Amino acid sequence: MKWSVKLTLAYHGGNYVGWQIQPNGASVQQTIEQAWFEVTGERIRITASGRTDSGVHALGQVCSCQTETNLKSGTLVRALNAMTPQDLCVLAAERAVDGFHAIRDAIGKTYRYRIQFDSPLSPFELDRSWYLPRKLDLDAMHQAAERLLGVQDFSSFETTGSTRNSKVRELSALTLKGRQKGSYKFLTIDMTANGFLYNMARTIVGTLVDVGQGRRTSESISDLLLACDRQAAGMTAPACGLYLVSVQYRPEHLATQP
Amino acid sequence: MKWSVKLTLAYHGGNYVGWQIQPNGASVQQTIEQAWFEVTGERIRITASGRTDSGVHALGQVCSCQTETNLKSGTLVRALNAMTPQDLCVLAAERAVDGFHAIRDAIGKTYRYRIQFDSPLSPFELDRSWYLPRKLDLDAMHQAAERLLGVQDFSSFETTGSTRNSKVRELSALTLKGRQKGSYKFLTIDMTANGFLYNMARTIVGTLVDVGQGRRTSESISDLLLACDRQAAGMTAPACGLYLVSVQYRPEHLATQP
Repeated sequence: MKWSVKLTLAYHGGNYVGWQIQPNGASVQQTIEQAWFEVTGERIRITASGRTDSGVHALGQVCSCQTETNLKSGTLVRALNAMTPQDLCVLAAERAVDGFHAIRDAIGKTYRYRIQFDSPLSPFELDRSWYLPRKLDLDAMHQAAERLLGVQDFSSFETTGSTRNSKVRELSALTLKGRQKGSYKFLTIDMTANGFLYNMARTIVGTLVDVGQGRRTSESISDLLLACDRQAAGMTAPACGLYLVSVQYRPEHLATQP
Repeated sequence: MKWSVKLTLAYHGGNYVGWQIQPNGASVQQTIEQAWFEVTGERIRITASGRTDSGVHALGQVCSCQTETNLKSGTLVRALNAMTPQDLCVLAAERAVDGFHAIRDAIGKTYRYRIQFDSPLSPFELDRSWYLPRKLDLDAMHQAAERLLGVQDFSSFETTGSTRNSKVRELSALTLKGRQKGSYKFLTIDMTANGFLYNMARTIVGTLVDVGQGRRTSESISDLLLACDRQAAGMTAPACGLYLVSVQYRPEHLATQP
């Protein structure tokens, strides 16, 4: 009998062409579906809460699938991890309510963006953060961040070409934490919304960096939102600094273990 | 006129054959000497406080050299960093007293070893820590660590073939800190001594892990030291978990900036 699984994955996006299966390299989807086949003998299709782009990392990507396997949760996790490369890890495989769907049932998502700024550049940050040799004005960035919060039309922050109808999202949290680690300076930007438009998280970061580098004022953010024009916002920050931290679901979507 | 420089470097050892120039790949020494030549036009020989092996990382390796360059410290640092790959960073270039020698004048060294233990394996730890799927008994490891402290003959912890005369060293600090980071468990082992025999830091870790996994008792460490036999100690822990944190010198070896 088929049952619904909620899979939680962590991966370093550097060696993947992204989530989606593509001809030009290994995708996360393909890697996990192949591991699933090797463990269970089942050819299944796994749906992620969102398709992370090439280079984007995940600390807690959530996926759904339907399976007939009799393997218990813990066994499934260990067996899948034995089949996946070291840069991809299955954190959990839980029984979900029938028909659980990782995209449709998601009510929120949290992304983290990591910036290393000011010199020197840490040798341990390659492919893990966006390096900016110039100093950032963190106070101005905090002020800009406040203007992005709430229910707003985020059209200006969406890469064009999307077919999504509504561009209104609620950005419920946007926190910036600066810290010094030895000789190196870091900024961590955490964002939570009920949904993110295509490249919205990275464009928010690119725009905040404009403010931090004095190329735009924090006050200008309000006009930018009203413009509903992607050209008005900052650059799409590089993929390597972005981490999908977690995906939120209503508690009723998770059933207890069998 | 020649003057003495104290260089402080950080590097990710994963892409290097080690410190020393070798025919089979890029060494840290070669990379920094080449950058120095590109910046100053000088062909110089740079001496490190110790030759880190292939895969071993540095957070604060110290090197010495003699130079005739007129470049100021800050300019030298920025120019060298512009010439080195992203996994090697010059943190400082300071004027030292005449004849400063990074090996001879060192009075102590601090190494760090990082272990990720218990499942799951973090996708972000490849080449940065030693992964042990089994749980570790940290209390037993703490007890074993205490027996290693002080002035002792560390022959049992030296890879054979060394030509060093005295095997007596003072291990002045050996601290173990366990922590949980999300789903992952880490152990950080910090070691400070007035000098380390060849592979001594990694063999201490291999032996402590034996204790942590129940393959030897903490009490057995005292006999192990008395044995003066490399066969009596644990394995040499993998290079990828080892970080040279800092090298200590007497304050009089550093002069003020010109």
